[in-house]
Amino acid sequence: MPDLPFVTLLTDFGDRDPYVGVMKGVMAQICPQLHFIDLTHEIPPQNLAAARFSLANAFPYFPPHTIHLAVVDPGVGSNRRSVAIELENGYLIGPDNGILGGVFSQYPIVTAVELNNPDYWRTASPSHTFHGRDIFSPAAAYLANGVPMGELGTAIDPHTLVDLDLPECEANDSGYLGSVQYCDRFGNLVTNIPGSYVAGKSWHAVIANRHLASHQKYNDVAVGELLALVGSHGWVEIAANQGSAAAQLPQSWGAEVQIILSATG
Amino acid sequence: MPDLPFVTLLTDFGDRDPYVGVMKGVMAQICPQLHFIDLTHEIPPQNLAAARFSLANAFPYFPPHTIHLAVVDPGVGSNRRSVAIELENGYLIGPDNGILGGVFSQYPIVTAVELNNPDYWRTASPSHTFHGRDIFSPAAAYLANGVPMGELGTAIDPHTLVDLDLPECEANDSGYLGSVQYCDRFGNLVTNIPGSYVAGKSWHAVIANRHLASHQKYNDVAVGELLALVGSHGWVEIAANQGSAAAQLPQSWGAEVQIILSATG
Amino acid sequence: MPDLPFVTLLTDFGDRDPYVGVMKGVMAQICPQLHFIDLTHEIPPQNLAAARFSLANAFPYFPPHTIHLAVVDPGVGSNRRSVAIELENGYLIGPDNGILGGVFSQYPIVTAVELNNPDYWRTASPSHTFHGRDIFSPAAAYLANGVPMGELGTAIDPHTLVDLDLPECEANDSGYLGSVQYCDRFGNLVTNIPGSYVAGKSWHAVIANRHLASHQKYNDVAVGELLALVGSHGWVEIAANQGSAAAQLPQSWGAEVQIILSATG
Repeated sequence: MPDLPFVTLLTDFGDRDPYVGVMKGVMAQICPQLHFIDLTHEIPPQNLAAARFSLANAFPYFPPHTIHLAVVDPGVGSNRRSVAIELENGYLIGPDNGILGGVFSQYPIVTAVELNNPDYWRTASPSHTFHGRDIFSPAAAYLANGVPMGELGTAIDPHTLVDLDLPECEANDSGYLGSVQYCDRFGNLVTNIPGSYVAGKSWHAVIANRHLASHQKYNDVAVGELLALVGSHGWVEIAANQGSAAAQLPQSWGAEVQIILSATG
Repeated sequence: MPDLPFVTLLTDFGDRDPYVGVMKGVMAQICPQLHFIDLTHEIPPQNLAAARFSLANAFPYFPPHTIHLAVVDPGVGSNRRSVAIELENGYLIGPDNGILGGVFSQYPIVTAVELNNPDYWRTASPSHTFHGRDIFSPAAAYLANGVPMGELGTAIDPHTLVDLDLPECEANDSGYLGSVQYCDRFGNLVTNIPGSYVAGKSWHAVIANRHLASHQKYNDVAVGELLALVGSHGWVEIAANQGSAAAQLPQSWGAEVQIILSATG
Repeated sequence: MPDLPFVTLLTDFGDRDPYVGVMKGVMAQICPQLHFIDLTHEIPPQNLAAARFSLANAFPYFPPHTIHLAVVDPGVGSNRRSVAIELENGYLIGPDNGILGGVFSQYPIVTAVELNNPDYWRTASPSHTFHGRDIFSPAAAYLANGVPMGELGTAIDPHTLVDLDLPECEANDSGYLGSVQYCDRFGNLVTNIPGSYVAGKSWHAVIANRHLASHQKYNDVAVGELLALVGSHGWVEIAANQGSAAAQLPQSWGAEVQIILSATG
């Protein structure tokens, strides 16, 4: 572990209640040197797809030994597993319900464990409704303290880790057919179509029967006008210059998006 | 004071304005080593009961020398006192209006002072509307710097500290009659009935003429269904599996809840 | 640079998406010792006036070497400049679109540079839509690491820095005519009329044909009643005791406010 261990936190706990603060208090008791960085706590309640997307998009920007704690946990208290995963470039801790899948599907897994050793829980009788406090936070802090992965629980086969079954982008005659996988605070609609598919090509997008020319940046169109571009996440994005694409279109999350590639000269 | 002094912050200042950031800036000027942990800044404006509840529920999860700064202050500028309280397991700083009562009523008080020594204010003429910046934040930072409690102001009799007059849970013929003291972001209704009253017993809850069976965890009922359980705070809670109990019931904050104990064999 | 470099962050990125966390990750990779303090991320999207006001009001409360990173950036990707400004009492980093003007117009500028040296960008091909991640955050972290201002890019004439053209407060026969420049979470209306204009005088305020007596603190009037006072920001403010002035008046942002000075004996 490095001198300054970072822990990121991503939950659907919101900002109204002290749940996130409580998790930090639990970690501070075990490892006072931790530096906390909040990713977001405003994941829509129990929305695993949004949580998975946000974690996967933030992960690459952090130092390699960062511990990423992600708790959106509709199955808390059920028999879903609590897990820690060591990757070559970071650690993941959370419920084994797909929230971590956007990261572990992209990077090599070193080892994965089920967090079933009560010696590293906050209490031998964890709450049935708040594993973030009683199981996940202690695991993160003990890991930062140098406790080996294998101490935290039983090793598990990485192939058994749960991922979400999400719609995929598919090639078709005109180009690619995908869908909106995330809608951000600005009303930008992030699709599941990789920007690399359209790089260097001439293309436009169709959403809700609207044909939108592709551009490089928001300011290439008039204020309020819709456009298609490759967004900062690296995905094709539908946006409105200084406005909200989500507010102008009949559907946001899940909406179908067709990319039409033009013959270039 | 320990090497890494923690300060928690709980206010009704919200996230829109830089008021909380300003308090941290004031503290950083006095004690740059402080580690800040936000409990919440989204207490409904001037809701002392919600603030008192949140602080009391978060307090036990922090290291023993943590300084807890709580500012929900409808009487700012009036003659309500500004206080610091040293407990055996932490420090409390805030207005003497009941916000701190959920903690100091539970743990032994070592000493309490009124923050009336202007040498430890940010300015000799503090704002009449923002004691969080001008009186409470400096007190927290000076305390972290090692300034003794007695320097910050005049000692006061702990018995004169103000607490809120809140509804209490009462035993009756069927079991216990209590009420909802807090409603969280998920729409879970936290009552004022201690979980210890129902531990190991067979019981159900009645709220708004709905009889709700008791369970151990949200997933014990179908998605969207109401249930009663002992929540992670340690209180009887009315919840809905992957849904909002508050949205399904006619009343949330203050609603009456009857616990009915069954004869067990 | 001091041992504990502070970076404040002010954006319109909101709390729903991991954009702010990503910026912190980028900075942590370059300078792990940074301490982050969030001012606010809930600036209304693309509202430069609100951002400029919030930054200017928070700035004076921070230690002198603090780096203030402010990103409200409707022109991202256009030809607006990315800048860093060294003042005698702090550093400013952000787009050259007026957001920084409330600070640099008040304090002496030591030097200003355009952030056009790609060696200190996150990548040689920065995103056209997220300079906060690719240009501003790296600049802040390299500055904290001791990289000289002149390395980050070309020196620019401070007189060419962009400021907003905002309505000003003007003296008239009765006193002063100003307007509401900011409305906070409590519904307090902060005007552009300096408190110093009314200090020691007898005055009242007129807004939306309502004549409001001036007081020292919220509690000087009945609960819910409107009043005028000098707020904690140092500006004349229209407020309601334990209530929202914004909710009681037909207009908030931009509303005209007349100060009427009385003859005093």
